Amino acid sequence: MEIKSLEDLVKDQFNDMVQIRRHLHMYPELSFKEVHTPAYIADYLRNLNIDVTEGVGGRGVVGKLIIDENLPTVALRADFDALPIQDLKDTPYKSTVPGVMHACGHDAHTAIVLSAARILSGMKDELKGNVVFIHQHAEEVDPGGAIQMIADGALDGVDAIFGTHVSTSLDVGKIGYKYGTATGIPDDFTIKLKGQGGHASRPHHTIDPVAAGISLCNQLQYAVTRRSDAMDSVVLSITMFNAGTQHNVIPDEVTIGGTIRTFNQDMQSLMIKELNSTLDGLSRMTGVTYDLDYMRGYPPVINDDAMTDIVVESAAKISTVDETLRLEPDLGGEDFSYYLQKVPGTFFYTGVRNSNFKADFPHHTAHFDIDESGMINAVNVMLQSVFTYFEKESR
Amino acid sequence: MEIKSLEDLVKDQFNDMVQIRRHLHMYPELSFKEVHTPAYIADYLRNLNIDVTEGVGGRGVVGKLIIDENLPTVALRADFDALPIQDLKDTPYKSTVPGVMHACGHDAHTAIVLSAARILSGMKDELKGNVVFIHQHAEEVDPGGAIQMIADGALDGVDAIFGTHVSTSLDVGKIGYKYGTATGIPDDFTIKLKGQGGHASRPHHTIDPVAAGISLCNQLQYAVTRRSDAMDSVVLSITMFNAGTQHNVIPDEVTIGGTIRTFNQDMQSLMIKELNSTLDGLSRMTGVTYDLDYMRGYPPVINDDAMTDIVVESAAKISTVDETLRLEPDLGGEDFSYYLQKVPGTFFYTGVRNSNFKADFPHHTAHFDIDESGMINAVNVMLQSVFTYFEKESR
Amino acid sequence: MEIKSLEDLVKDQFNDMVQIRRHLHMYPELSFKEVHTPAYIADYLRNLNIDVTEGVGGRGVVGKLIIDENLPTVALRADFDALPIQDLKDTPYKSTVPGVMHACGHDAHTAIVLSAARILSGMKDELKGNVVFIHQHAEEVDPGGAIQMIADGALDGVDAIFGTHVSTSLDVGKIGYKYGTATGIPDDFTIKLKGQGGHASRPHHTIDPVAAGISLCNQLQYAVTRRSDAMDSVVLSITMFNAGTQHNVIPDEVTIGGTIRTFNQDMQSLMIKELNSTLDGLSRMTGVTYDLDYMRGYPPVINDDAMTDIVVESAAKISTVDETLRLEPDLGGEDFSYYLQKVPGTFFYTGVRNSNFKADFPHHTAHFDIDESGMINAVNVMLQSVFTYFEKESR
Amino acid sequence: MEIKSLEDLVKDQFNDMVQIRRHLHMYPELSFKEVHTPAYIADYLRNLNIDVTEGVGGRGVVGKLIIDENLPTVALRADFDALPIQDLKDTPYKSTVPGVMHACGHDAHTAIVLSAARILSGMKDELKGNVVFIHQHAEEVDPGGAIQMIADGALDGVDAIFGTHVSTSLDVGKIGYKYGTATGIPDDFTIKLKGQGGHASRPHHTIDPVAAGISLCNQLQYAVTRRSDAMDSVVLSITMFNAGTQHNVIPDEVTIGGTIRTFNQDMQSLMIKELNSTLDGLSRMTGVTYDLDYMRGYPPVINDDAMTDIVVESAAKISTVDETLRLEPDLGGEDFSYYLQKVPGTFFYTGVRNSNFKADFPHHTAHFDIDESGMINAVNVMLQSVFTYFEKESR
Repeated sequence: MEIKSLEDLVKDQFNDMVQIRRHLHMYPELSFKEVHTPAYIADYLRNLNIDVTEGVGGRGVVGKLIIDENLPTVALRADFDALPIQDLKDTPYKSTVPGVMHACGHDAHTAIVLSAARILSGMKDELKGNVVFIHQHAEEVDPGGAIQMIADGALDGVDAIFGTHVSTSLDVGKIGYKYGTATGIPDDFTIKLKGQGGHASRPHHTIDPVAAGISLCNQLQYAVTRRSDAMDSVVLSITMFNAGTQHNVIPDEVTIGGTIRTFNQDMQSLMIKELNSTLDGLSRMTGVTYDLDYMRGYPPVINDDAMTDIVVESAAKISTVDETLRLEPDLGGEDFSYYLQKVPGTFFYTGVRNSNFKADFPHHTAHFDIDESGMINAVNVMLQSVFTYFEKESR
Repeated sequence: MEIKSLEDLVKDQFNDMVQIRRHLHMYPELSFKEVHTPAYIADYLRNLNIDVTEGVGGRGVVGKLIIDENLPTVALRADFDALPIQDLKDTPYKSTVPGVMHACGHDAHTAIVLSAARILSGMKDELKGNVVFIHQHAEEVDPGGAIQMIADGALDGVDAIFGTHVSTSLDVGKIGYKYGTATGIPDDFTIKLKGQGGHASRPHHTIDPVAAGISLCNQLQYAVTRRSDAMDSVVLSITMFNAGTQHNVIPDEVTIGGTIRTFNQDMQSLMIKELNSTLDGLSRMTGVTYDLDYMRGYPPVINDDAMTDIVVESAAKISTVDETLRLEPDLGGEDFSYYLQKVPGTFFYTGVRNSNFKADFPHHTAHFDIDESGMINAVNVMLQSVFTYFEKESR
Repeated sequence: MEIKSLEDLVKDQFNDMVQIRRHLHMYPELSFKEVHTPAYIADYLRNLNIDVTEGVGGRGVVGKLIIDENLPTVALRADFDALPIQDLKDTPYKSTVPGVMHACGHDAHTAIVLSAARILSGMKDELKGNVVFIHQHAEEVDPGGAIQMIADGALDGVDAIFGTHVSTSLDVGKIGYKYGTATGIPDDFTIKLKGQGGHASRPHHTIDPVAAGISLCNQLQYAVTRRSDAMDSVVLSITMFNAGTQHNVIPDEVTIGGTIRTFNQDMQSLMIKELNSTLDGLSRMTGVTYDLDYMRGYPPVINDDAMTDIVVESAAKISTVDETLRLEPDLGGEDFSYYLQKVPGTFFYTGVRNSNFKADFPHHTAHFDIDESGMINAVNVMLQSVFTYFEKESR
Repeated sequence: MEIKSLEDLVKDQFNDMVQIRRHLHMYPELSFKEVHTPAYIADYLRNLNIDVTEGVGGRGVVGKLIIDENLPTVALRADFDALPIQDLKDTPYKSTVPGVMHACGHDAHTAIVLSAARILSGMKDELKGNVVFIHQHAEEVDPGGAIQMIADGALDGVDAIFGTHVSTSLDVGKIGYKYGTATGIPDDFTIKLKGQGGHASRPHHTIDPVAAGISLCNQLQYAVTRRSDAMDSVVLSITMFNAGTQHNVIPDEVTIGGTIRTFNQDMQSLMIKELNSTLDGLSRMTGVTYDLDYMRGYPPVINDDAMTDIVVESAAKISTVDETLRLEPDLGGEDFSYYLQKVPGTFFYTGVRNSNFKADFPHHTAHFDIDESGMINAVNVMLQSVFTYFEKESR
């Protein structure tokens, strides 16, 4: 396949890709609650005469472009859930759903893979293998959609997999890649501290769970600073603290939530141990009792070296990619890891930052947006990687 | 007036009084949102041929039993608002309104004063003065109903005032009284800490307002332990801490609320100064900015010595009062203080604790209940105080 | 006894009294290490032909001026130990002993009682009772000298006792008194936290006792703010934290000391319980072990009403006393309390503040000094109280 | 040079090497206070007919074995200062100096380099270059001896340098090496917080620097957990907290010390900024003022690749080295870095752990000891590296 013509095909698809992304952006749906999004995706794929299965692993959609079952099969994966964040942008395509927003770019991921599907479905004759389009629900929330889709057969017959994440940490024109460990283990925890409420003027008649919660959150800092090895990495963030509704009433209980991010099971186990011993000590100190709901997160994404080489080579060929960057691992979580436990593959990063378009806000914030032209590079790298993979396999 | 017969009248009224209290208990209404309660009270008073004004100072009800405008006038006051607490009792008369409950006994106060009104309205010939029944809305929430009712004329022509609070700290049969300062200054504060949110795995890209809030609440303990004079009294309670909705997102801001209780302006000013300097320092330490909404509370209730003497004498005469107790001041707030800034009066405490009836939970908690027979003593002390007051004035 | 002449006698004694005080001020000795001070006192008393016993209860000195053993006997008490503080004043009589200083005024107390002894010893014919001069060592440090001196007979035959404390919180010319409870229970504690030290760059290989100590001291604030009744009084001060000698070594252990001040055993017990449960919880949280050495302090000084009346009356007669003030109790500790457990008496306060002489620094600080003319009032009140006491007893 | 014979020479030197090490171990001297140790070293070298200069850069000793000034020159460096730790071992050679101890192994380093000097001085004919023996004082304490010795000419004419550190993290038989960055930037800080002391029962009359110090140390944890990038490394350890001498006196000031360890200037600058802003905020919160003495530490040791290759090759040839391990960088500091800023070289790690000899305590602790047989490997690697270096240079 000649590169120039592939890039031209992507260019032709751009307007449609933007339209897909903006449609999804306006009608975001929360994880495990997606209804219209998978239906939209399934329609789109069916119109391409791709074989579609809906409800895979719950709400996932799998499209199969089968050339010959004896040929190798590669999968392209996109996630499609949104976040419980109020969209504060002022754009025509801003979210129409109060408190829900595509603030992480999964709308773009979907537009990218659907665009790839459209282009590939139009050039069956040139394909030396099969392509599976995995549209996954619920990447943002444990236990994630991937594990369920895999159990439900999404990877059956698949030999390799590619996925991307758009990034406002990278300018448009840049493609990032990582060898080996790419992401962390994103555990979540929810703690309920139970005391005995009462009138706020008589704390000595209560067991004050708010005060105990303050002490807990403060003491947990020491788990990071004193117990963990500084040569390894760990983040413990308290993101939720919900207590009380009235100025003059000490409540009976408080709920505290957060996340612990690590790269390996040793550090994960250490932090769980510290969390438990801190809670145990807190209980002795203050008299509160507690429930700890600890949700172990996705395993780390571990990219395959050979598959990463393919992405690096492919990116180098794209005219609109001006830099291909080796990135360090980060402590974000990503359930693409489950696919990689089954088949080799790699997860790369597509630059969509452009401060001229206000596309430079961090992911998961209320003004998040992307420079949509960055999606062109993502599609190109995916297509080029598919063809390169098939070539290598056919040697 | 002979005591025995007064006590008999109250005994006859008991069933009706319980019915009033239970009705109100089942249909509680939040402060400044009372609609049915004042209407119910107004109806009851009108049926006694008492002159009624509704909507006094907003939602208050004033009933006037005028014998002769040249005679002295005494007021009896009851508050009638409920609290945003879910009733967890298992009784036939438990609250029917989700999340709202008479958890402080204002239903009983209302039943007590309505019962006094009924008895007094039936013995006009024996009255040597006029009686005003002040049914006040919104005692629980700043700025309270009292200040508004007074501005709207509730105390016009009134020479003295009595009020009571039922108490599950006192057994049925006990009446408590305080000379001079009885309650504290119940200030409330709401603090909004504004940082910069982001992904929970990258706190260094955020200004974490949750962490700043933890530091703030922790540091405020030192205002009490290091800056205040231990020979004086102060309570600082953090009762509300609301932050975040999602495990993997550090929010942009948190809201923290609480109360500061003092007995005098010096301590109040000191604590406000400490609160401000702690916030200022926190801002420098962490980069958060803040809004502080500080609501100065009711002034202290300061009982009049002569009026308190009347209650003490009166209580001693009641056959079912087995002990009259001098109580220490406490840091609760009570907007009865505003009436006492205008006319002499006293605020006494009526024992309603009885562990046999599970009437021994603290006020402002979800299982709060009273032994209703305690209300008999409250009515008796009120009636007897009214007659004693008139006698003293007519000398 | 006629007042005028007594005041004249005191005036005549002033120069000698100043000389005594300044001598002691220049040669201070620490608690339980007093050698020269008691010898000096004993010499002074012997020169007055007063019967002297040295080494009472260790290092105390008792002088007895016996008129007739059948007559009533009153004691005057002064303490004479100094503090481990470096004198930073610039006066001719500043301390000559490095790191030791009369920073609480016990030098003045001694000068006052020795002066009283000199005057009384010169007017035996006018005395209607006996006077015992109790010069006590070691008031500043548990268990104090009083309990030992009493056990060794210091109060034998004594019927009543007076003592005073000079105060830079009161201007010269003022005498303070308290009825009933005058001082608190001054408990001391010393905590050793034992971890496992190591190189400061690898805290995760240690059990860091410094970090644990920080958490402990921080958490103890909540014992005061959340567990104690704000209507009662308590102070918990951490005054000592000793850890480490080198920047790059986390030490094996830290030593933390402080004081807990209360007015009654209930609060004292509560705080001890909280201290223990906080240490227990800390140990679970952090892995440190601990030794707690808790030293219960002196009981509260509880002044006798009749004896306090005598001081109030007496003070009112003194021409240089311009105000006699009723003071609130405070949480300082004073082992005068042990004498009061045996015989009635009272402990009064003598104003020595005068900002013109830089005599306005707090007690226990490095610039502490007194306006020596205030000592005149102390002697006068003591002498007058002795005579008044004898008169009342002889009625 | 044939290996076998070199190893035999080292074996013959072992007893002497042990004697040197034990002698130094018994007579340790603190950094910048070394007197007998450099004299001992100079004597030893002079007896080998090596040209010795004493007092280099203060207290350092430089020995020069010059074969021919036109040939390449390699340096071997050993540090010789001890630590302020009380030796708690029970061995015949334990420290005889109270509170001072070779708890880091610098005694062994000295014995190793002196032994190398003795062997090399006996085989001058076989040397194809010159060897300089750099015996450095004061490695443990900023600014370290290296920078001063270099300024005073210690590296004049030197082309390359080797050094080693014994390690109880590595078993005897293991040699560790690192390419590139090997150690961190070990900054130290000392903070004086100045408040206003007073009696411990009246904290509200003081500005309590102990409480402020607790808040400071607690808040500094957040600099690490919230402000630093978890993908980079930082350690902030509070190792010293010195406050107060008496239970009932709140002191005027406290002194807090510790260390901040980073690998690069960005993180170092961030932490300094956070330390300053935390102190600034603390001052606003509490009223204390502060002095911050911040001592930037040694730069990171950055090993030269080619020189590290030489050590790796050399170690592989030694019969008693059973494993050569690539190690990760650590946050310890080492002023060997200054030599490496001037000439290429490498710093390797020599295993001396042996739990059979209780040689498994961490460095900088009171029971630290080594298995002396590990020193044999260090000398062998040094000698072999010297010969290898000369061979490579002579090609």
